[in-house]
Amino acid sequence: MLTYNSKDWFKFIFFFRRSDTVVTLLPGIIGVGLFTWLIAFLELKYLVLTEREYIKNLSVMHSMLTFVISMLLVFRTNSAYDRWWEGRKLWGALVNNSRNLALKLGAMLPQEDKHNRMFYKKMIPMYAHVLSLHLRSEITRLALDEKEHPELAAIDHNKHIPNHVAALIFRRTNRLYEEKKITGDQLIVLNAELLSFTDICGACERIKNTPIPMSYSTFLKKFIFFFVLTLPFSFVLSLKYWAIPVVIFIFYALTSLEIIAEEIEDPFDGDENDLPIVKISENINKHVAELL
Amino acid sequence: MLTYNSKDWFKFIFFFRRSDTVVTLLPGIIGVGLFTWLIAFLELKYLVLTEREYIKNLSVMHSMLTFVISMLLVFRTNSAYDRWWEGRKLWGALVNNSRNLALKLGAMLPQEDKHNRMFYKKMIPMYAHVLSLHLRSEITRLALDEKEHPELAAIDHNKHIPNHVAALIFRRTNRLYEEKKITGDQLIVLNAELLSFTDICGACERIKNTPIPMSYSTFLKKFIFFFVLTLPFSFVLSLKYWAIPVVIFIFYALTSLEIIAEEIEDPFDGDENDLPIVKISENINKHVAELL
Amino acid sequence: MLTYNSKDWFKFIFFFRRSDTVVTLLPGIIGVGLFTWLIAFLELKYLVLTEREYIKNLSVMHSMLTFVISMLLVFRTNSAYDRWWEGRKLWGALVNNSRNLALKLGAMLPQEDKHNRMFYKKMIPMYAHVLSLHLRSEITRLALDEKEHPELAAIDHNKHIPNHVAALIFRRTNRLYEEKKITGDQLIVLNAELLSFTDICGACERIKNTPIPMSYSTFLKKFIFFFVLTLPFSFVLSLKYWAIPVVIFIFYALTSLEIIAEEIEDPFDGDENDLPIVKISENINKHVAELL
Amino acid sequence: MLTYNSKDWFKFIFFFRRSDTVVTLLPGIIGVGLFTWLIAFLELKYLVLTEREYIKNLSVMHSMLTFVISMLLVFRTNSAYDRWWEGRKLWGALVNNSRNLALKLGAMLPQEDKHNRMFYKKMIPMYAHVLSLHLRSEITRLALDEKEHPELAAIDHNKHIPNHVAALIFRRTNRLYEEKKITGDQLIVLNAELLSFTDICGACERIKNTPIPMSYSTFLKKFIFFFVLTLPFSFVLSLKYWAIPVVIFIFYALTSLEIIAEEIEDPFDGDENDLPIVKISENINKHVAELL
Amino acid sequence: MLTYNSKDWFKFIFFFRRSDTVVTLLPGIIGVGLFTWLIAFLELKYLVLTEREYIKNLSVMHSMLTFVISMLLVFRTNSAYDRWWEGRKLWGALVNNSRNLALKLGAMLPQEDKHNRMFYKKMIPMYAHVLSLHLRSEITRLALDEKEHPELAAIDHNKHIPNHVAALIFRRTNRLYEEKKITGDQLIVLNAELLSFTDICGACERIKNTPIPMSYSTFLKKFIFFFVLTLPFSFVLSLKYWAIPVVIFIFYALTSLEIIAEEIEDPFDGDENDLPIVKISENINKHVAELL
Repeated sequence: MLTYNSKDWFKFIFFFRRSDTVVTLLPGIIGVGLFTWLIAFLELKYLVLTEREYIKNLSVMHSMLTFVISMLLVFRTNSAYDRWWEGRKLWGALVNNSRNLALKLGAMLPQEDKHNRMFYKKMIPMYAHVLSLHLRSEITRLALDEKEHPELAAIDHNKHIPNHVAALIFRRTNRLYEEKKITGDQLIVLNAELLSFTDICGACERIKNTPIPMSYSTFLKKFIFFFVLTLPFSFVLSLKYWAIPVVIFIFYALTSLEIIAEEIEDPFDGDENDLPIVKISENINKHVAELL
Repeated sequence: MLTYNSKDWFKFIFFFRRSDTVVTLLPGIIGVGLFTWLIAFLELKYLVLTEREYIKNLSVMHSMLTFVISMLLVFRTNSAYDRWWEGRKLWGALVNNSRNLALKLGAMLPQEDKHNRMFYKKMIPMYAHVLSLHLRSEITRLALDEKEHPELAAIDHNKHIPNHVAALIFRRTNRLYEEKKITGDQLIVLNAELLSFTDICGACERIKNTPIPMSYSTFLKKFIFFFVLTLPFSFVLSLKYWAIPVVIFIFYALTSLEIIAEEIEDPFDGDENDLPIVKISENINKHVAELL
Repeated sequence: MLTYNSKDWFKFIFFFRRSDTVVTLLPGIIGVGLFTWLIAFLELKYLVLTEREYIKNLSVMHSMLTFVISMLLVFRTNSAYDRWWEGRKLWGALVNNSRNLALKLGAMLPQEDKHNRMFYKKMIPMYAHVLSLHLRSEITRLALDEKEHPELAAIDHNKHIPNHVAALIFRRTNRLYEEKKITGDQLIVLNAELLSFTDICGACERIKNTPIPMSYSTFLKKFIFFFVLTLPFSFVLSLKYWAIPVVIFIFYALTSLEIIAEEIEDPFDGDENDLPIVKISENINKHVAELL
Repeated sequence: MLTYNSKDWFKFIFFFRRSDTVVTLLPGIIGVGLFTWLIAFLELKYLVLTEREYIKNLSVMHSMLTFVISMLLVFRTNSAYDRWWEGRKLWGALVNNSRNLALKLGAMLPQEDKHNRMFYKKMIPMYAHVLSLHLRSEITRLALDEKEHPELAAIDHNKHIPNHVAALIFRRTNRLYEEKKITGDQLIVLNAELLSFTDICGACERIKNTPIPMSYSTFLKKFIFFFVLTLPFSFVLSLKYWAIPVVIFIFYALTSLEIIAEEIEDPFDGDENDLPIVKISENINKHVAELL
Repeated sequence: MLTYNSKDWFKFIFFFRRSDTVVTLLPGIIGVGLFTWLIAFLELKYLVLTEREYIKNLSVMHSMLTFVISMLLVFRTNSAYDRWWEGRKLWGALVNNSRNLALKLGAMLPQEDKHNRMFYKKMIPMYAHVLSLHLRSEITRLALDEKEHPELAAIDHNKHIPNHVAALIFRRTNRLYEEKKITGDQLIVLNAELLSFTDICGACERIKNTPIPMSYSTFLKKFIFFFVLTLPFSFVLSLKYWAIPVVIFIFYALTSLEIIAEEIEDPFDGDENDLPIVKISENINKHVAELL
């Protein structure tokens, strides 16, 4: 993730980064442009239609469906953004959780118990680290797929690493309790943090392996496709060759939102807009080391 | 559920899966097409109406109601998606819960206590399994219906299975406490997970047996029906026979959203868009076995 | 509540149940129809206005305000549905709560302690039962009214029944603790459920006795009224007598949403769309008996 | 607050209460009416403009901005309603909290301990009472203002009363624990309620002293003002003197929403739409007396 | 933050504060005005286009995209406001938390233990104070940036101050427990507040260092830019030189929303609309001193 200054309008408007939707959409933009030119050529040169043709009234359909498509895109944008923001919250909770556990153990363990301090100093940031690897792996994304994935079979007998780290941390803490190094009251006080690790992991996995229902994704793409491809028929009659940039701009505006939503929806990949989970786990490492 | 790559536009646009709304709507599409053709024939050939007829201004009604219908469809889409996503969250919580319980018991029970370990290793995934069966049964869906269902009477004396599994787990845990195998502090630490099983079950039942209020469902269907069926009267005058594909496309766009919402609303059936609860309970089985 | 199959379009479109908004709105529909006919008669026969009259441009006002009215109706729909769904969640929580309490006590109380088991077997479902009566009484609805209600004075010295049942349950549980039949750790484990009863009751009372602010309700009704009553003036000129069904349909669409919202907003009455709280409390009775 | 029957359309439409927005807006309505008349006079009599003037196309701007203004008003309505409803939830939580605390103490304290029972019987409802006074005072509203308020200095050395009542309750409860009148387990069970008092107070203060960001409030008012004041220029040409009621109605619809939002936003004042916090604290008094 | 009276319409409409968007947008407004004038001059004087030109139909594109842009701006407004309000809630929680901790310790610590009372009286408000400094520092904003920031290197070896204050508070509380000055039950009762400090800090950091995904910010700015810059081409033909104020007003309305969202999004800066975190931490200081 790149931190940016949102007030720098000039840079945002005139520079095109590699992940900009204009770049991603370039082939589509060219295709739509050519298609509109073709329709314009057919209607204006070949069929010589005029503005009085009935086909011109097709625009009534487009204006009627504009609301529906706008609403749908907003629904798409909201649900994608909610996942992204929920992902960010979860990693924020992981940071808090790691800090709190370190802070509590730092106070409960005797200053001279180097051995146990070392253990937690290593294992707490370890959890964030293995979780970040876990969330970027292909197996996690396909965990709920009903198709077989023979290509992943080789790796599949690897166990669920974050669970194992969590189990190590819990076992050590329980042993401290059994050895009376911490009291029962202190165990209860530690419980929330211990529990929270796997909760966060499970919620991240949920975001990762469950995109929005396929039927919405399919319907929206089909809808945009037919909507944009019927635009030239009426626009060419009222705008002539000016219809080409107009259709392109509408295509760009509508598909950009879908493209951005697709990218944002899975916030744990390494894309430019995705969450900086590697950076966050480095920060956890730094903070925990300070506290223990 | 099929995991899909949302960036594959080509496949989404040109392939029609069996659950695609186009397929479901085919009879309706044909009906609406024929109806529009009939109106077109009547108005253009039989009555020979022209664009100056007053009926053409009917379109003012449609443009006014477009907002209302779009808003309603978005309300419908949002509430259906919220149920689906809440269902997903609940099953995610069930995963976390099962993992946490396994992880804690794995640390608390002595390594050599094979007997109790075996019990939990079997019963924790069992809960997810019986819950998935419970949620797909017809009795669960009709639990709040005020009509009599004599056809279900034969099965009705089966008891509430998930509750019984939860009771078994809780009883065993309480016995461990009474036999001093776990301390009171540890019982408190285990409490959240034990409690959470029935909470998740109850919330899933709520989603299953309470669709959105019937009056919304009825009103929306009536509204779409009259809206689409009055479209041809004015469109035929401005678009002639082109009105047929136009009315069909509008019909397709509006009803698709309602159709998808109906399917998504009950996320525990085995449809293509529904939650992979069987797969999830298999994953729970695998993870719990690793941890105990 | 009637459980319904949302996919049965045919039945929804062509059958009119007694609670259908069309039925409720019938007087209004007739009134609006007559009014539009009157305006049509006056403008077309008496004043003989033509389409070139300035009054026709009144439609610009209507198209401008359509957004505002649609947005408001969606706000109304959302807030009413949220109350209904919150009410459903609360009763779902009551189910979970009763189950969990029964399940825990079933494990904690010795099998032979028939006396206490009987007590909880009776009192836990009793709470749901008295709550359902409490929520349907007129006193509950008017609990926050600042006007005097002398007609209710006779019943008013009845005390708050759900609170008394909750107090009985809590007192018995505390006595079990004092008599050392359950330990302190077990009391803590039971605490969440004991507490939850009155929380649920309070939240249901809130939904019952606090409708949305009167100013929104008033404004929306006034707005719809003036909006619909000014429609005929311009529509009659462009649609002649066709304006009658058109105005009726717009009136139907807009007021239906308000009518449904009014009904849904108080989800504890016995209407067809309301929550089946009696059925739910019967189910609680059945499940608790199984678990204790 | 007045409890009302939302189904009484007739009364809502034809009666104007003192707090009705029509009444509040009367000066504005007259001003806008006069202004529109002035523009009408100038354009029609003095400049004798006709419908073919370019100024008539100004309406294109208004139709474009209608969406933006509707959306903004819905954002305003939603955020104001959310505060109002959150305020209601908080006072509902205060009711639950007071009941639960009374109910628990009623069970824990020995029946003969009149002294402590009396204390809680008096202090629990006292908290609701002082909170209601606290929330209606001007000091609370201005707690975060950065300007100096010398006019409030005289009262400012009064301390934070709700905090002091909460401190008294907590201190007494802690003393009961130290005197072994309640056990540690019981203290933990009471903790949630004791904590909740100040949490509710803090959340109410937040709603009271933080209106929505001033920039939104300013922008919305400026926007409505310029939007409405440019309406007559084009409307007069298409509607002649009919523009006067039309502009008035649009002005009424848009500003009403802002006016209602302003009133709802601070739900603790004594306005007709505000929360009945005095009534609620009386109810708490009644219920707590029953339970202790 | 300035507390304001939202009912003072006159002042809001006619006064322009320094942070008003009109002031911020002045250069843009002048630029857009000049650009529109240029297009008007070219089209009307140089090319002498008339209303019948095809370019006039460009307005069909603008009316189609108006919905999309309004929806996007509302999405932007909502997500920015949510952050601002979440920030306010967090600081409200910090107030509650500090009060509760002070109130509990005030009751638990013996009246004569001046030493420990002094410690908490100083350290609890200290946390709010160092957090407010921490949230205004540039390092916090850039904590997740992947670029190197050599200019910040000099300060970077400063440690995470709020964590250290939290560690001091927790350590002291744990020592009180070990020295038996507070019991285990009391430690559990104090746990929620101790934990909450770092949770609040982490959540504030999240809001601070994670703006909305750059792709939305970029897309929205590009979209507004092209939308506004193509407006004059068609408006000039229908509105002549009147197009200049019209385009300026549309530009003002659209960009204002983006500008306000940018400012609100980071609620911890010292801007006029930002949260009064310094004032809040002063209030915490005052209230805690009263309670301990």
